[in-house]
Amino acid sequence: MSSRLKDVAARAGVSVRTVSNVVSGAAPVAVETRRRVQEAIDELGYHPNLAARSLRAGRTGIIGLAIPELHSPYFSELAGLLVDEARRRSWTVLIDQTHGDAEAERRLLTPGGGRVVDGLIISPWALDPAELAAAQPSAPLVLLGERHPNGAADRVAVDNVTAADEATSHLIGLGRRRIAAIGTQPHLRNGTAQLRTEGYLRALDRAGLLHDQDFQRSVRALHRADGARAMDELLDGPASPDAVFAFSDELALGALHTAHQRGLRVPEDIAIVGFDDIEDGRYSNPPLTTVSPDKQQIAERSLQCLADRIYSPANTTPPQEITVPHRLVARSTT
Amino acid sequence: MSSRLKDVAARAGVSVRTVSNVVSGAAPVAVETRRRVQEAIDELGYHPNLAARSLRAGRTGIIGLAIPELHSPYFSELAGLLVDEARRRSWTVLIDQTHGDAEAERRLLTPGGGRVVDGLIISPWALDPAELAAAQPSAPLVLLGERHPNGAADRVAVDNVTAADEATSHLIGLGRRRIAAIGTQPHLRNGTAQLRTEGYLRALDRAGLLHDQDFQRSVRALHRADGARAMDELLDGPASPDAVFAFSDELALGALHTAHQRGLRVPEDIAIVGFDDIEDGRYSNPPLTTVSPDKQQIAERSLQCLADRIYSPANTTPPQEITVPHRLVARSTT
Repeated sequence: MSSRLKDVAARAGVSVRTVSNVVSGAAPVAVETRRRVQEAIDELGYHPNLAARSLRAGRTGIIGLAIPELHSPYFSELAGLLVDEARRRSWTVLIDQTHGDAEAERRLLTPGGGRVVDGLIISPWALDPAELAAAQPSAPLVLLGERHPNGAADRVAVDNVTAADEATSHLIGLGRRRIAAIGTQPHLRNGTAQLRTEGYLRALDRAGLLHDQDFQRSVRALHRADGARAMDELLDGPASPDAVFAFSDELALGALHTAHQRGLRVPEDIAIVGFDDIEDGRYSNPPLTTVSPDKQQIAERSLQCLADRIYSPANTTPPQEITVPHRLVARSTT
Repeated sequence: MSSRLKDVAARAGVSVRTVSNVVSGAAPVAVETRRRVQEAIDELGYHPNLAARSLRAGRTGIIGLAIPELHSPYFSELAGLLVDEARRRSWTVLIDQTHGDAEAERRLLTPGGGRVVDGLIISPWALDPAELAAAQPSAPLVLLGERHPNGAADRVAVDNVTAADEATSHLIGLGRRRIAAIGTQPHLRNGTAQLRTEGYLRALDRAGLLHDQDFQRSVRALHRADGARAMDELLDGPASPDAVFAFSDELALGALHTAHQRGLRVPEDIAIVGFDDIEDGRYSNPPLTTVSPDKQQIAERSLQCLADRIYSPANTTPPQEITVPHRLVARSTT
C-alpha cells in the first residue's frame, strides 16, 4: 500500500506526507493542494485503508446522508451524485431514510446521533426551524434546502422563491390566466413548499392576477398519486384551471396522468410545469417543462462544505448559505 | 439504556441476556426467538448503541449495499426497501455505486474489500461467474440476481427465464406475431439479459414463431435513452414489429417515448411490455404492462440471509438459492 501512496504523491507532485495528510486529515492542507491530491487519487483509483485511516485520525471515512426517501427520483438522483462525489473524496456514504418523520430527523441531530460518521448531510422535512437551530450533532453538518435558520449549519439550496416565480411567469407569458399550484404543504414546516407558494403568488401579483384559494392544492406527500389526486380535485372544482404549476416533477407527472385519463389535451387544454428535472419527465408523453436545479452543484458544494469542516476542526467560519443555480427547461407540456 | 434493553426483554418474553445476545451477536440465538426480539425492538423503537455494540462483538452494525446505480428507479426502489428493512434490524446501510464497473465490483469482493461492513449485498453487473465464484469477501455476502455460480454465496433473484417467457406469451396471446426484444446485452456476463433472452425465445418457439435477429436489439445500458434508440433502430429496420418486450421498464418507457414521437398508437400499432414495475410505469401515458418482481421479498430475504450468516459465524449451511415471486401486471400498453 505504501507504494501506491507514493504513486499518488508522484502524480500530484507533492510529498508522501502531504498525501497522507489529505487522506488522514492529520494536518491541514491548502485547498488547491488537496484538490490536486484528490485528482491524483481519482486517476489512480487509490483507496486508502479505511481502518488504518480511522486509527490515525479518529475518523471513519464515512459520511451520513439523511433524506426523506430513496425511491423518490429527485432524492435518488441527488443521492447518486453525492455517492459518486463522496467516492472521489475517498468517503463512503451511509444512507438514512427519514420518511419525513420528525423523530428520525431529531435522532440524527442529537449528540451521538451521527454515531460513526465524520460528517452528515441532511435534507430535513419535518423539523421546524427552531429545532434545527438547536441541533447539536456530533459531526459537521450540511443542511439541504432553504429557510433553515441562519447559523444552524452550512446549507445548500436553490432560490425557491425566484424559481417558482419564473415557472409561474412562464405560464403567464404563454397567455394562461387560471393558474393552479399543486404542492402547498401548510402542515409541514420545512419551508420549501412555503417558498414556492410565495414565488407563485408573487408572479400572479405582478401580472395582476387574483389569488384563488381553490387553485392552491395542498398535498400530504410529493408522489405521483398525490399529484393525480390534486388534479382530480382541481378539475372537479368550481373554476377549471388552464395551467398548473406543480411543486415537484412527481406531482406534475401525476397531474399529467389525470389529465390524460380525463381526455384533456396537454398543453392545449391545460399546461403543466414541474420542479426537479427528474429523468422521468424528459421521457414523459409529452415531455415535461420543469425547473432544473443544478443537482451536480448541490452534491459538490455540500461535500466541499463538509470537507472544509472535517479537515479543519478548528475552522470557525460562520455557517455558509450557498445558493446553487437553477434554470427553467421548457419542453412540451407548456 | 439498560432500562430500554429491559423493556425489549419484557415485551419479547425473554431474558435481558437473550436480547443482548441478539443485538451484539455475542452468542447464537434460536431463529424464532431472534424474530420475537427483533419485533419487540421494532415496536419499541429501540436503537442499541452502535459503538458499544461494535466493541462487544467486533461488529459495526453496518451492512454494505453495492448496486450499479442509485438513480435508476429499480435500484432506488429496491435500495429504499433494503434501507428500511435494515433499520428494522438495527443495521445502517453503506451504499456503493459500481456503475457496472468490473474493477469496482472486484474491489468489493476481495478480502478487506468490505472493510467496515458486517455483511455485503451486491448486485453484480460486470463480473463473470468465474470471478464471482472465486470471491473471498471478508464478510458474509448475498448476491442479487440469477446465474451466479452455485456455491459462491447466498443469492436472491426472480426466475428470469419464466418471467420473460410469460411477458412474451402475453403478447402472443394478444395476437402479436412480430415481437421484438429490447435489452439483450451480449457484451455483459451477468446473466440476467441472457436469461430473459432465453425466456423470450422459448415463448417464440412454443408458438412456432421464428427468431428474427433484427428483432433482438442489444443495449449498452438499461436507461430510457437506450430504449428510445433501440426503438428507433427497430422502426427503421426491414420488418416493423407489432410488439416489444423490453428487459426493463426504463427501456420500455424510452421505447414508448419514441413510439409517441413517431406518431404510433400504443398498443394499437405497437404493444409494449416492460420489466421491474417501477412507479414511473404506473403513471406513464398509457400506463405500462410489466413484470413485477416482489421487491419487498428481495429486501427481506437478502437481509435474512445476511443475518443468518452474521449472527452465526459458525453457520456452515451451503449457499442458498432463493427465488422470489414475480407476476405479470397487465396495464394499457398491451
